[in-house]
Amino acid sequence: MQTAAARDVTAAGRARADIRAGRHTGPTSGLAPGFAQTNLVILPEAYALDFLRFCVRNPGPCPLLDVTATGSPCPQMLAPTADLRSDLPRYRVFTDGKCIAEPTDVHRYWRADLVAFLLGCSFTFEWALAAAGIPLAHQRQRTNVPMYVTDRPCVPAGPFRGPMVVSMRPIPPTDLARAADVTARFPAMHGAPVHAGDPAALGIGDLARPDFGDPVAIADDEIPVFWACGVTPQTAVQSAAPPIAIVHAPGHMFITDLPHEHYDSAAPASRLPGGLS
Amino acid sequence: MQTAAARDVTAAGRARADIRAGRHTGPTSGLAPGFAQTNLVILPEAYALDFLRFCVRNPGPCPLLDVTATGSPCPQMLAPTADLRSDLPRYRVFTDGKCIAEPTDVHRYWRADLVAFLLGCSFTFEWALAAAGIPLAHQRQRTNVPMYVTDRPCVPAGPFRGPMVVSMRPIPPTDLARAADVTARFPAMHGAPVHAGDPAALGIGDLARPDFGDPVAIADDEIPVFWACGVTPQTAVQSAAPPIAIVHAPGHMFITDLPHEHYDSAAPASRLPGGLS
Repeated sequence: MQTAAARDVTAAGRARADIRAGRHTGPTSGLAPGFAQTNLVILPEAYALDFLRFCVRNPGPCPLLDVTATGSPCPQMLAPTADLRSDLPRYRVFTDGKCIAEPTDVHRYWRADLVAFLLGCSFTFEWALAAAGIPLAHQRQRTNVPMYVTDRPCVPAGPFRGPMVVSMRPIPPTDLARAADVTARFPAMHGAPVHAGDPAALGIGDLARPDFGDPVAIADDEIPVFWACGVTPQTAVQSAAPPIAIVHAPGHMFITDLPHEHYDSAAPASRLPGGLS
Repeated sequence: MQTAAARDVTAAGRARADIRAGRHTGPTSGLAPGFAQTNLVILPEAYALDFLRFCVRNPGPCPLLDVTATGSPCPQMLAPTADLRSDLPRYRVFTDGKCIAEPTDVHRYWRADLVAFLLGCSFTFEWALAAAGIPLAHQRQRTNVPMYVTDRPCVPAGPFRGPMVVSMRPIPPTDLARAADVTARFPAMHGAPVHAGDPAALGIGDLARPDFGDPVAIADDEIPVFWACGVTPQTAVQSAAPPIAIVHAPGHMFITDLPHEHYDSAAPASRLPGGLS
Protein backbone atom coordinates (compact mmCIF):
# COMPACT_ATOMS: atom_id res chain seq x y z
CA MET A 1 0.00 0.00 0.00
CA GLN A 2 2.97 2.26 0.58
CA THR A 3 3.90 1.84 -3.06
CA ALA A 4 0.39 2.72 -4.15
CA ALA A 5 0.39 5.81 -1.95
CA ALA A 6 3.78 6.85 -3.27
CA ARG A 7 2.54 6.40 -6.83
CA ASP A 8 -0.46 8.63 -6.15
CA VAL A 9 1.87 11.56 -5.71
CA THR A 10 2.64 11.24 -9.39
CA ALA A 11 1.12 13.23 -12.19
CA ALA A 12 -1.20 10.29 -12.88
CA GLY A 13 -2.71 10.37 -9.40
CA ARG A 14 -3.08 14.14 -9.52
CA ALA A 15 -4.80 13.98 -12.90
CA ARG A 16 -7.25 11.34 -11.61
CA ALA A 17 -7.91 13.48 -8.51
CA ASP A 18 -8.71 16.46 -10.75
CA ILE A 19 -11.05 14.34 -12.83
CA ARG A 20 -12.71 12.78 -9.77
CA ALA A 21 -13.35 16.24 -8.31
CA GLY A 22 -14.89 17.47 -11.54
CA ARG A 23 -12.07 19.91 -12.23
CA HIS A 24 -11.32 18.21 -15.55
CA THR A 25 -14.14 16.93 -17.77
CA GLY A 26 -12.50 17.05 -21.22
CA PRO A 27 -10.45 14.56 -23.23
CA THR A 28 -7.39 13.08 -21.50
CA SER A 29 -4.92 13.53 -24.37
CA GLY A 30 -1.91 15.37 -22.95
CA LEU A 31 -2.84 14.76 -19.30
CA ALA A 32 -0.18 13.13 -17.06
CA PRO A 33 2.38 12.86 -19.86
CA GLY A 34 4.39 9.66 -19.68
CA PHE A 35 1.64 7.55 -18.12
CA ALA A 36 -0.26 4.93 -20.10
CA GLN A 37 -3.98 5.47 -20.64
CA THR A 38 -6.56 2.77 -21.35
CA ASN A 39 -9.94 2.01 -22.85
CA LEU A 40 -12.71 0.99 -20.41
CA VAL A 41 -15.56 -1.50 -20.80
CA ILE A 42 -17.84 -2.39 -17.85
CA LEU A 43 -20.28 -5.30 -18.16
CA PRO A 44 -22.42 -7.55 -15.96
CA GLU A 45 -20.56 -10.66 -14.78
CA ALA A 46 -22.93 -12.83 -16.85
CA TYR A 47 -21.28 -11.33 -19.96
CA ALA A 48 -17.72 -11.24 -18.63
CA LEU A 49 -16.52 -14.68 -19.70
CA ASP A 50 -17.66 -14.24 -23.30
CA PHE A 51 -16.20 -10.74 -23.44
CA LEU A 52 -12.87 -12.10 -22.18
CA ARG A 53 -13.03 -14.75 -24.90
CA PHE A 54 -13.69 -12.00 -27.45
CA CYS A 55 -10.58 -10.14 -26.26
CA VAL A 56 -8.37 -13.25 -26.28
CA ARG A 57 -9.53 -14.08 -29.80
CA ASN A 58 -8.97 -10.52 -31.06
CA PRO A 59 -5.81 -9.39 -29.26
CA GLY A 60 -4.91 -6.73 -31.83
CA PRO A 61 -7.94 -4.49 -31.25
CA CYS A 62 -8.70 -5.77 -27.72
CA PRO A 63 -5.47 -6.09 -25.69
CA LEU A 64 -6.44 -6.95 -22.10
CA LEU A 65 -4.48 -5.10 -19.42
CA ASP A 66 -6.62 -5.65 -16.33
CA VAL A 67 -9.95 -7.13 -15.21
CA THR A 68 -11.51 -6.16 -11.87
CA ALA A 69 -12.98 -8.47 -9.28
CA THR A 70 -16.77 -8.69 -9.66
CA GLY A 71 -18.35 -5.62 -8.04
CA SER A 72 -15.02 -3.84 -7.56
CA PRO A 73 -14.33 -0.52 -9.31
CA CYS A 74 -10.59 -0.83 -8.55
CA PRO A 75 -8.14 -1.72 -11.36
CA GLN A 76 -5.54 -3.16 -9.01
CA MET A 77 -2.89 -3.88 -11.64
CA LEU A 78 -2.99 -0.42 -13.19
CA ALA A 79 -3.80 1.99 -10.35
CA PRO A 80 -4.62 0.46 -6.96
CA THR A 81 -6.02 3.71 -5.52
CA ALA A 82 -8.27 4.54 -8.47
CA ASP A 83 -12.07 4.29 -8.63
CA LEU A 84 -13.36 3.53 -12.11
CA ARG A 85 -16.78 5.03 -11.24
CA SER A 86 -15.39 8.56 -10.99
CA ASP A 87 -11.85 8.68 -12.35
CA LEU A 88 -12.63 9.05 -16.05
CA PRO A 89 -13.81 12.46 -17.24
CA ARG A 90 -16.79 11.17 -19.22
CA TYR A 91 -18.58 7.87 -19.78
CA ARG A 92 -21.18 6.43 -22.11
CA VAL A 93 -23.90 4.29 -20.52
CA PHE A 94 -25.76 1.72 -22.65
CA THR A 95 -28.88 -0.24 -21.84
CA ASP A 96 -29.82 -2.99 -24.29
CA GLY A 97 -27.25 -1.63 -26.76
CA LYS A 98 -28.57 1.93 -26.77
CA CYS A 99 -26.70 4.90 -25.33
CA ILE A 100 -28.86 6.46 -22.62
CA ALA A 101 -26.43 8.89 -20.96
CA GLU A 102 -22.96 10.45 -21.16
CA PRO A 103 -22.28 11.29 -17.50
CA THR A 104 -19.05 12.38 -15.80
CA ASP A 105 -19.55 9.88 -12.95
CA VAL A 106 -21.25 6.47 -12.94
CA HIS A 107 -21.80 5.78 -9.24
CA ARG A 108 -25.57 5.81 -9.80
CA TYR A 109 -25.31 3.06 -12.43
CA TRP A 110 -22.97 0.83 -10.45
CA ARG A 111 -24.14 -2.70 -9.56
CA ALA A 112 -22.62 -5.45 -7.43
CA ASP A 113 -22.41 -7.74 -10.48
CA LEU A 114 -20.35 -5.43 -12.70
CA VAL A 115 -16.87 -6.32 -14.00
CA ALA A 116 -14.53 -3.72 -15.52
CA PHE A 117 -12.09 -4.41 -18.34
CA LEU A 118 -9.15 -2.14 -19.09
CA LEU A 119 -7.81 -2.38 -22.64
CA GLY A 120 -4.69 -0.97 -24.30
CA CYS A 121 -4.86 2.41 -26.02
CA SER A 122 -2.93 3.90 -28.94
CA PHE A 123 -1.74 6.89 -26.89
CA THR A 124 1.20 4.75 -25.76
CA PHE A 125 2.43 3.90 -29.23
CA GLU A 126 1.81 7.49 -30.36
CA TRP A 127 4.15 8.51 -27.54
CA ALA A 128 6.71 6.02 -28.85
CA LEU A 129 6.30 7.26 -32.44
CA ALA A 130 6.82 10.86 -31.29
CA ALA A 131 9.89 9.77 -29.31
CA ALA A 132 11.22 8.18 -32.50
CA GLY A 133 10.80 11.47 -34.35
CA ILE A 134 7.83 10.35 -36.45
CA PRO A 135 5.32 13.24 -36.45
CA LEU A 136 1.58 12.55 -36.28
CA ALA A 137 -0.73 14.47 -38.60
CA HIS A 138 -3.75 14.53 -36.28
CA GLN A 139 -1.63 16.03 -33.51
CA ARG A 140 -0.11 18.62 -35.90
CA GLN A 141 -3.63 19.40 -37.12
CA ARG A 142 -4.96 19.37 -33.51
CA THR A 143 -7.81 16.97 -34.29
CA ASN A 144 -8.87 13.53 -33.07
CA VAL A 145 -7.34 10.57 -34.89
CA PRO A 146 -9.70 9.34 -37.66
CA MET A 147 -11.20 5.86 -37.15
CA TYR A 148 -12.89 3.58 -39.68
CA VAL A 149 -15.08 0.50 -39.53
CA THR A 150 -13.43 -2.17 -41.74
CA ASP A 151 -14.92 -5.13 -43.61
CA ARG A 152 -12.81 -7.55 -41.52
CA PRO A 153 -14.96 -9.37 -38.99
CA CYS A 154 -13.56 -10.00 -35.53
CA VAL A 155 -13.65 -13.60 -34.30
CA PRO A 156 -16.95 -13.72 -32.39
CA ALA A 157 -17.44 -14.99 -28.83
CA GLY A 158 -20.97 -15.63 -27.56
CA PRO A 159 -23.03 -12.49 -28.24
CA PHE A 160 -19.93 -10.35 -28.96
CA ARG A 161 -19.29 -9.83 -32.64
CA GLY A 162 -18.59 -7.09 -35.12
CA PRO A 163 -16.04 -5.63 -37.52
CA MET A 164 -12.55 -4.54 -36.62
CA VAL A 165 -12.26 -0.77 -36.27
CA VAL A 166 -8.94 0.82 -37.22
CA SER A 167 -7.31 4.18 -36.62
CA MET A 168 -5.36 5.86 -39.42
CA ARG A 169 -2.19 7.94 -39.33
CA PRO A 170 -0.48 9.30 -42.47
CA ILE A 171 3.22 8.34 -42.55
CA PRO A 172 5.89 8.98 -45.21
CA PRO A 173 6.82 5.67 -46.87
CA THR A 174 10.41 6.28 -45.81
CA ASP A 175 9.29 6.18 -42.15
CA LEU A 176 6.95 3.21 -42.54
CA ALA A 177 9.33 0.38 -41.56
CA ARG A 178 10.49 2.33 -38.52
CA ALA A 179 6.90 3.17 -37.51
CA ALA A 180 6.07 -0.54 -37.76
CA ASP A 181 9.14 -1.48 -35.70
CA VAL A 182 8.35 1.06 -32.99
CA THR A 183 4.68 0.13 -32.60
CA ALA A 184 5.42 -3.63 -32.78
CA ARG A 185 7.27 -3.18 -29.48
CA PHE A 186 3.89 -2.46 -27.82
CA PRO A 187 1.77 -5.59 -28.43
CA ALA A 188 -0.46 -4.65 -25.46
CA MET A 189 -1.19 -1.29 -27.09
CA HIS A 190 -2.42 -2.58 -30.49
CA GLY A 191 1.11 -3.39 -31.76
CA ALA A 192 2.23 -3.13 -35.39
CA PRO A 193 0.00 -1.68 -38.14
CA VAL A 194 -2.53 -4.04 -39.70
CA HIS A 195 -2.28 -2.45 -43.12
CA ALA A 196 -0.64 0.38 -45.03
CA GLY A 197 -1.49 1.96 -48.36
CA ASP A 198 -4.84 0.99 -49.80
CA PRO A 199 -7.95 1.83 -47.74
CA ALA A 200 -10.06 -0.34 -50.09
CA ALA A 201 -8.12 -3.40 -48.90
CA LEU A 202 -9.88 -2.90 -45.55
CA GLY A 203 -13.22 -2.03 -47.13
CA ILE A 204 -12.81 1.67 -46.35
CA GLY A 205 -14.50 3.75 -49.03
CA ASP A 206 -13.59 7.35 -48.24
CA LEU A 207 -10.79 8.42 -45.92
CA ALA A 208 -12.30 11.90 -45.77
CA ARG A 209 -15.33 10.51 -43.95
CA PRO A 210 -14.16 8.59 -40.85
CA ASP A 211 -16.74 6.68 -38.81
CA PHE A 212 -15.30 8.15 -35.59
CA GLY A 213 -12.92 11.06 -34.93
CA ASP A 214 -11.95 13.70 -37.47
CA PRO A 215 -10.56 13.52 -41.01
CA VAL A 216 -6.89 14.41 -41.38
CA ALA A 217 -5.15 15.72 -44.46
CA ILE A 218 -2.71 13.28 -46.07
CA ALA A 219 0.30 15.00 -47.65
CA ASP A 220 1.59 14.05 -51.11
CA ASP A 221 4.58 12.31 -49.56
CA GLU A 222 2.52 10.26 -47.08
CA ILE A 223 0.48 7.05 -47.21
CA PRO A 224 -2.32 6.05 -44.83
CA VAL A 225 -1.25 3.52 -42.20
CA PHE A 226 -3.88 1.60 -40.21
CA TRP A 227 -3.71 0.21 -36.69
CA ALA A 228 -6.26 -1.93 -34.81
CA CYS A 229 -8.34 0.37 -32.62
CA GLY A 230 -9.84 0.20 -29.15
CA VAL A 231 -13.24 1.30 -30.47
CA THR A 232 -13.62 -2.27 -31.78
CA PRO A 233 -14.79 -3.72 -28.42
CA GLN A 234 -17.34 -0.90 -28.01
CA THR A 235 -18.95 -1.94 -31.30
CA ALA A 236 -19.02 -5.57 -30.12
CA VAL A 237 -20.57 -4.53 -26.81
CA GLN A 238 -23.32 -2.64 -28.64
CA SER A 239 -24.02 -5.72 -30.73
CA ALA A 240 -24.24 -7.91 -27.59
CA ALA A 241 -26.72 -5.42 -26.09
CA PRO A 242 -26.40 -6.37 -22.41
CA PRO A 243 -28.89 -4.86 -19.95
CA ILE A 244 -26.17 -2.42 -18.93
CA ALA A 245 -22.76 -1.52 -20.28
CA ILE A 246 -20.54 1.42 -19.39
CA VAL A 247 -17.62 2.55 -21.57
CA HIS A 248 -15.36 5.60 -21.64
CA ALA A 249 -16.51 8.45 -23.87
CA PRO A 250 -14.25 8.68 -26.96
CA GLY A 251 -10.95 10.33 -26.02
CA HIS A 252 -11.87 10.37 -22.31
CA MET A 253 -9.59 7.57 -21.19
CA PHE A 254 -8.50 6.05 -17.89
CA ILE A 255 -5.06 7.27 -16.72
CA THR A 256 -2.95 4.50 -15.16
CA ASP A 257 -0.04 4.67 -12.71
CA LEU A 258 2.19 2.81 -15.19
CA PRO A 259 4.64 4.60 -17.46
CA HIS A 260 4.46 3.92 -21.20
CA GLU A 261 7.81 2.09 -20.95
CA HIS A 262 6.13 -0.61 -18.86
CA TYR A 263 4.49 -1.88 -22.04
CA ASP A 264 7.61 -1.73 -24.24
CA SER A 265 8.55 -5.37 -24.84
CA ALA A 266 12.04 -4.21 -25.87
CA ALA A 267 12.64 -1.70 -23.05
CA PRO A 268 15.31 -2.08 -20.37
CA ALA A 269 12.50 -1.62 -17.80
CA SER A 270 11.02 -5.00 -18.71
CA ARG A 271 14.46 -6.63 -18.70
CA LEU A 272 17.23 -7.90 -16.51
CA PRO A 273 17.76 -7.93 -13.68
CA GLY A 274 14.70 -8.67 -11.67
CA GLY A 275 12.07 -7.54 -14.16
CA LEU A 276 9.53 -9.81 -12.49
CA SER A 277 5.98 -8.60 -12.86
CA MET B 1 -13.17 -24.71 -43.40
CA GLN B 2 -11.13 -25.17 -46.56
CA THR B 3 -8.26 -23.39 -44.88
CA ALA B 4 -8.51 -25.62 -41.83
CA ALA B 5 -8.52 -28.74 -44.02
CA ALA B 6 -5.54 -27.47 -45.96
CA ARG B 7 -3.69 -26.79 -42.72
CA ASP B 8 -4.32 -30.34 -41.51
CA VAL B 9 -2.10 -31.63 -44.28
CA THR B 10 0.78 -30.03 -42.43
CA ALA B 11 3.17 -31.72 -40.07
CA ALA B 12 1.12 -30.33 -37.18
CA GLY B 13 -2.04 -32.08 -38.30
CA ARG B 14 -0.16 -35.32 -38.94
CA ALA B 15 1.44 -35.20 -35.49
CA ARG B 16 -1.97 -34.64 -33.84
CA ALA B 17 -3.42 -37.53 -35.86
CA ASP B 18 -0.61 -39.81 -34.64
CA ILE B 19 -1.23 -38.73 -31.07
CA ARG B 20 -5.02 -39.12 -31.39
CA ALA B 21 -4.58 -42.64 -32.75
CA GLY B 22 -2.26 -43.61 -29.88
CA ARG B 23 0.76 -43.96 -32.17
CA HIS B 24 2.65 -41.31 -30.17
CA THR B 25 2.34 -41.14 -26.37
CA GLY B 26 5.67 -39.50 -25.42
CA PRO B 27 6.75 -35.87 -25.01
CA THR B 28 6.09 -33.54 -27.95
CA SER B 29 9.53 -31.88 -28.06
CA GLY B 30 10.79 -32.21 -31.63
CA LEU B 31 7.38 -33.13 -33.09
CA ALA B 32 6.10 -31.03 -36.02
CA PRO B 33 9.13 -28.74 -36.07
CA GLY B 34 8.25 -25.14 -36.81
CA PHE B 35 4.79 -25.25 -35.22
CA ALA B 36 4.03 -23.57 -31.90
CA GLN B 37 3.05 -25.81 -28.98
CA THR B 38 1.01 -24.75 -25.94
CA ASN B 39 0.21 -25.49 -22.33
CA LEU B 40 -3.33 -26.73 -21.58
CA VAL B 41 -5.61 -26.07 -18.60
CA ILE B 42 -9.23 -27.30 -18.55
CA LEU B 43 -11.62 -26.12 -15.81
CA PRO B 44 -15.33 -25.98 -15.04
CA GLU B 45 -16.99 -22.79 -16.32
CA ALA B 46 -17.65 -21.72 -12.72
CA TYR B 47 -13.87 -21.26 -12.35
CA ALA B 48 -13.21 -19.84 -15.82
CA LEU B 49 -13.68 -16.12 -15.12
CA ASP B 50 -11.32 -16.15 -12.13
CA PHE B 51 -8.76 -18.20 -14.04
CA LEU B 52 -8.91 -15.70 -16.90
CA ARG B 53 -8.37 -12.90 -14.37
CA PHE B 54 -5.37 -14.82 -13.00
CA CYS B 55 -3.88 -15.04 -16.51
CA VAL B 56 -4.51 -11.35 -17.31
CA ARG B 57 -2.87 -10.36 -14.01
CA ASN B 58 0.14 -12.62 -14.57
CA PRO B 59 0.82 -12.38 -18.31
CA GLY B 60 4.48 -13.43 -18.06
CA PRO B 61 3.88 -16.98 -16.79
CA CYS B 62 0.28 -17.24 -18.13
CA PRO B 63 0.07 -15.84 -21.68
CA LEU B 64 -3.43 -16.58 -23.01
CA LEU B 65 -3.56 -17.77 -26.62
CA ASP B 66 -7.05 -19.26 -26.87
CA VAL B 67 -10.13 -20.06 -24.75
CA THR B 68 -12.75 -22.52 -25.98
CA ALA B 69 -16.50 -22.10 -25.91
CA THR B 70 -18.01 -23.78 -22.85
CA GLY B 71 -18.31 -27.52 -23.52
CA SER B 72 -16.25 -27.36 -26.72
CA PRO B 73 -12.94 -29.24 -26.99
CA CYS B 74 -12.00 -27.26 -30.13
CA PRO B 75 -9.31 -24.54 -29.92
CA GLN B 76 -10.62 -22.63 -32.92
CA MET B 77 -7.89 -19.98 -33.02
CA LEU B 78 -5.00 -22.44 -32.88
CA ALA B 79 -6.20 -25.57 -34.70
CA PRO B 80 -9.85 -25.64 -35.84
CA THR B 81 -9.83 -29.38 -36.58
CA ALA B 82 -8.23 -30.45 -33.29
CA ASP B 83 -9.94 -32.17 -30.36
CA LEU B 84 -8.38 -31.31 -27.01
CA ARG B 85 -9.76 -34.51 -25.45
CA SER B 86 -7.50 -36.74 -27.54
CA ASP B 87 -4.86 -34.64 -29.30
CA LEU B 88 -2.32 -34.38 -26.49
CA PRO B 89 -0.20 -37.48 -25.76
CA ARG B 90 -0.74 -37.42 -22.02
CA TYR B 91 -2.85 -35.54 -19.49
CA ARG B 92 -3.05 -35.10 -15.73
CA VAL B 93 -6.53 -35.18 -14.21
CA PHE B 94 -7.13 -33.50 -10.83
CA THR B 95 -10.13 -33.73 -8.53
CA ASP B 96 -10.18 -31.33 -5.58
CA GLY B 97 -6.52 -30.46 -6.25
CA LYS B 98 -5.26 -34.06 -6.22
CA CYS B 99 -3.94 -35.88 -9.29
CA ILE B 100 -6.08 -38.97 -9.83
CA ALA B 101 -4.96 -40.13 -13.29
CA GLU B 102 -2.46 -39.56 -16.10
CA PRO B 103 -4.40 -40.83 -19.13
CA THR B 104 -3.64 -40.48 -22.84
CA ASP B 105 -7.24 -39.46 -23.63
CA VAL B 106 -9.76 -37.57 -21.48
CA HIS B 107 -13.05 -38.27 -23.25
CA ARG B 108 -14.32 -40.10 -20.16
CA TYR B 109 -13.69 -37.03 -17.96
CA TRP B 110 -15.26 -34.52 -20.33
CA ARG B 111 -18.26 -32.49 -19.10
CA ALA B 112 -20.56 -30.02 -20.82
CA ASP B 113 -19.43 -27.24 -18.47
CA LEU B 114 -15.69 -27.48 -19.19
CA VAL B 115 -13.66 -24.63 -20.67
CA ALA B 116 -10.16 -25.13 -22.10
CA PHE B 117 -7.38 -22.55 -21.92
CA LEU B 118 -4.33 -22.68 -24.19
CA LEU B 119 -1.27 -20.86 -22.86
CA GLY B 120 2.06 -19.97 -24.48
CA CYS B 121 5.00 -22.38 -24.16
CA SER B 122 8.76 -21.82 -24.12
CA PHE B 123 9.35 -24.17 -27.05
CA THR B 124 8.72 -21.21 -29.34
CA PHE B 125 11.37 -18.96 -27.83
CA GLU B 126 13.77 -21.93 -27.62
CA TRP B 127 13.28 -22.28 -31.37
CA ALA B 128 14.10 -18.59 -31.75
CA LEU B 129 17.19 -18.87 -29.53
CA ALA B 130 18.43 -21.81 -31.57
CA ALA B 131 17.78 -19.87 -34.78
CA ALA B 132 19.88 -17.05 -33.32
CA GLY B 133 22.75 -19.46 -32.72
CA ILE B 134 22.37 -19.55 -28.94
CA PRO B 135 22.75 -23.20 -27.86
CA LEU B 136 20.61 -24.62 -25.05
CA ALA B 137 22.27 -26.76 -22.41
CA HIS B 138 19.27 -28.98 -21.67
CA GLN B 139 18.98 -29.84 -25.36
CA ARG B 140 22.73 -30.55 -25.64
CA GLN B 141 22.46 -32.68 -22.50
CA ARG B 142 19.23 -34.29 -23.78
CA THR B 143 17.28 -33.61 -20.59
CA ASN B 144 14.14 -31.65 -19.69
CA VAL B 145 14.60 -27.98 -18.89
CA PRO B 146 14.92 -27.47 -15.09
CA MET B 147 12.09 -25.55 -13.41
CA TYR B 148 12.01 -23.91 -9.97
CA VAL B 149 9.32 -22.56 -7.66
CA THR B 150 10.28 -18.95 -6.77
CA ASP B 151 9.46 -16.82 -3.74
CA ARG B 152 7.62 -14.29 -5.96
CA PRO B 153 3.87 -14.60 -5.50
CA CYS B 154 1.63 -14.27 -8.54
CA VAL B 155 -1.17 -11.71 -8.30
CA PRO B 156 -4.09 -13.82 -7.05
CA ALA B 157 -7.58 -13.98 -8.61
CA GLY B 158 -10.40 -15.61 -6.67
CA PRO B 159 -9.20 -19.05 -5.56
CA PHE B 160 -6.18 -18.99 -7.92
CA ARG B 161 -2.92 -18.09 -6.20
CA GLY B 162 0.62 -19.35 -5.89
CA PRO B 163 4.25 -18.59 -6.62
CA MET B 164 5.73 -17.90 -10.03
CA VAL B 165 7.54 -20.92 -11.45
CA VAL B 166 10.54 -20.26 -13.69
CA SER B 167 12.57 -22.31 -16.14
CA MET B 168 16.35 -21.92 -16.23
CA ARG B 169 18.78 -22.00 -19.15
CA PRO B 170 22.53 -21.41 -18.78
CA ILE B 171 23.75 -18.70 -21.18
CA PRO B 172 27.21 -17.16 -21.62
CA PRO B 173 27.12 -13.53 -20.39
CA THR B 174 28.26 -12.45 -23.85
CA ASP B 175 25.03 -13.91 -25.31
CA LEU B 176 22.75 -12.59 -22.58
CA ALA B 177 21.64 -9.33 -24.18
CA ARG B 178 20.93 -11.11 -27.45
CA ALA B 179 19.03 -13.91 -25.69
CA ALA B 180 16.92 -11.26 -23.94
CA ASP B 181 16.31 -9.42 -27.25
CA VAL B 182 15.28 -12.61 -29.05
CA THR B 183 12.88 -13.85 -26.37
CA ALA B 184 11.41 -10.35 -25.80
CA ARG B 185 10.05 -10.63 -29.35
CA PHE B 186 7.70 -13.41 -28.12
CA PRO B 187 5.58 -11.79 -25.37
CA ALA B 188 2.89 -14.47 -25.86
CA MET B 189 5.50 -17.18 -25.18
CA HIS B 190 6.78 -15.86 -21.81
CA GLY B 191 8.87 -13.06 -23.38
CA ALA B 192 12.15 -11.73 -21.97
CA PRO B 193 13.91 -13.34 -18.99
CA VAL B 194 12.69 -12.33 -15.53
CA HIS B 195 16.14 -12.61 -13.98
CA ALA B 196 19.74 -13.56 -14.71
CA GLY B 197 22.57 -14.43 -12.42
CA ASP B 198 21.65 -14.99 -8.79
CA PRO B 199 19.19 -17.82 -8.03
CA ALA B 200 18.84 -16.53 -4.46
CA ALA B 201 17.26 -13.34 -5.81
CA LEU B 202 14.29 -15.53 -6.77
CA GLY B 203 14.40 -17.56 -3.57
CA ILE B 204 15.92 -20.56 -5.33
CA GLY B 205 18.21 -22.43 -2.95
CA ASP B 206 19.89 -25.10 -5.05
CA LEU B 207 20.00 -25.12 -8.85
CA ALA B 208 21.02 -28.78 -8.74
CA ARG B 209 17.61 -29.70 -7.31
CA PRO B 210 14.90 -28.34 -9.62
CA ASP B 211 11.25 -28.64 -8.53
CA PHE B 212 10.32 -29.94 -11.99
CA GLY B 213 12.39 -31.25 -14.91
CA ASP B 214 16.04 -32.24 -14.70
CA PRO B 215 19.15 -30.44 -13.44
CA VAL B 216 21.53 -29.17 -16.13
CA ALA B 217 25.24 -28.53 -15.81
CA ILE B 218 26.25 -24.87 -15.93
CA ALA B 219 29.61 -24.31 -17.57
CA ASP B 220 32.22 -21.96 -16.08
CA ASP B 221 31.55 -19.40 -18.79
CA GLU B 222 27.75 -19.44 -18.32
CA ILE B 223 25.27 -17.85 -15.90
CA PRO B 224 21.77 -19.10 -15.10
CA VAL B 225 18.99 -17.19 -16.87
CA PHE B 226 15.40 -17.49 -15.71
CA TRP B 227 12.17 -17.19 -17.68
CA ALA B 228 8.54 -17.26 -16.45
CA CYS B 229 7.20 -20.78 -16.92
CA GLY B 230 3.90 -22.33 -17.96
CA VAL B 231 3.94 -24.63 -14.93
CA THR B 232 2.86 -21.58 -12.89
CA PRO B 233 -0.85 -21.87 -13.77
CA GLN B 234 -0.83 -25.60 -12.90
CA THR B 235 0.32 -24.72 -9.39
CA ALA B 236 -2.44 -22.11 -9.11
CA VAL B 237 -5.01 -24.63 -10.35
CA GLN B 238 -3.95 -27.13 -7.68
CA SER B 239 -4.31 -24.43 -5.03
CA ALA B 240 -7.83 -23.58 -6.28
CA ALA B 241 -8.74 -27.29 -6.08
CA PRO B 242 -11.78 -27.30 -8.39
CA PRO B 243 -13.91 -30.47 -8.50
CA ILE B 244 -12.18 -31.32 -11.78
CA ALA B 245 -9.20 -29.92 -13.67
CA ILE B 246 -7.33 -31.40 -16.62
CA VAL B 247 -3.87 -30.23 -17.68
CA HIS B 248 -1.23 -31.53 -20.08
CA ALA B 249 1.37 -33.86 -18.57
CA PRO B 250 4.76 -32.08 -18.35
CA GLY B 251 6.38 -31.96 -21.78
CA HIS B 252 3.29 -33.45 -23.45
CA MET B 253 2.04 -30.26 -25.09
CA PHE B 254 -0.69 -29.32 -27.58
CA ILE B 255 0.63 -28.85 -31.15
CA THR B 256 -1.00 -25.91 -32.95
CA ASP B 257 -1.41 -25.17 -36.66
CA LEU B 258 0.44 -21.88 -36.25
CA PRO B 259 4.12 -21.48 -37.07
CA HIS B 260 6.40 -20.02 -34.40
CA GLU B 261 6.76 -16.88 -36.52
CA HIS B 262 3.09 -16.10 -35.91
CA TYR B 263 4.03 -15.08 -32.36
CA ASP B 264 7.10 -13.01 -33.29
CA SER B 265 6.08 -9.41 -32.64
CA ALA B 266 8.98 -8.28 -34.84
CA ALA B 267 8.48 -10.74 -37.71
CA PRO B 268 7.51 -9.77 -41.24
CA ALA B 269 4.65 -12.29 -40.93
CA SER B 270 2.88 -10.08 -38.40
CA ARG B 271 3.54 -6.98 -40.50
CA LEU B 272 2.48 -5.10 -43.56
CA PRO B 273 0.66 -5.55 -45.75
CA GLY B 274 -2.57 -7.03 -44.57
CA GLY B 275 -1.31 -8.68 -41.38
CA LEU B 276 -4.86 -8.57 -39.98
CA SER B 277 -5.56 -11.29 -37.46
